[in-house]
Amino acid sequence: MAAAFAAVGGKWKLTLVYWLAHGESHFAGLRRRGAPITAKVLAEQLRELEADGLVERVVTGPVPAPVIYRLTEYGTSVLPVVESVRVWGEEHLRRSRGGVAVSEAMSCVYPVG
Amino acid sequence: MAAAFAAVGGKWKLTLVYWLAHGESHFAGLRRRGAPITAKVLAEQLRELEADGLVERVVTGPVPAPVIYRLTEYGTSVLPVVESVRVWGEEHLRRSRGGVAVSEAMSCVYPVG
Repeated sequence: MAAAFAAVGGKWKLTLVYWLAHGESHFAGLRRRGAPITAKVLAEQLRELEADGLVERVVTGPVPAPVIYRLTEYGTSVLPVVESVRVWGEEHLRRSRGGVAVSEAMSCVYPVG
Repeated sequence: MAAAFAAVGGKWKLTLVYWLAHGESHFAGLRRRGAPITAKVLAEQLRELEADGLVERVVTGPVPAPVIYRLTEYGTSVLPVVESVRVWGEEHLRRSRGGVAVSEAMSCVYPVG
């Protein structure tokens, strides 16, 4: 059971799947979006997601062409999980913030790129 | 959004909610169940779950009476999330292990206590 949770249970994994579901991204874009995530932790989470077949790292040309990260088709199978966390999280934020600015907190206003 | 995922996105949080949904437990019981989780990480995850109101720490009597951890009523609101991860995780283990012994891997054969 713990093994199953480990695949999506890293602190940033579901967030990364959620962001990548909105579009592929460079490492720098994810890092900007995920501040204060460190480069080390981000690289680690991406590597684990890649090892589990959820995310792929695409080299777009000869070095130093940018590398982009995107969800694999298998990675989209996690979206129902992401959605269930989003639904719960929306209520959780409403509860913990006393109803303030939830729609803003949950929206994806900054482009990932 | 990341804040919402953070509440349940620690590496062990959903696993702990899942275990505690099966019954309250002492720290030592959770630690045994969660090996190789370290005491430091376990304490940290429990503290965060407690801060978010999902788990409560109950002192059962005067020191050195055992402390038990249990889900709060609010904590049970996370169970649909746990279930969606369980369903996905079952498929994921089947996929990554080539169909071997999934029911065993997903079951809760060791008592938490």
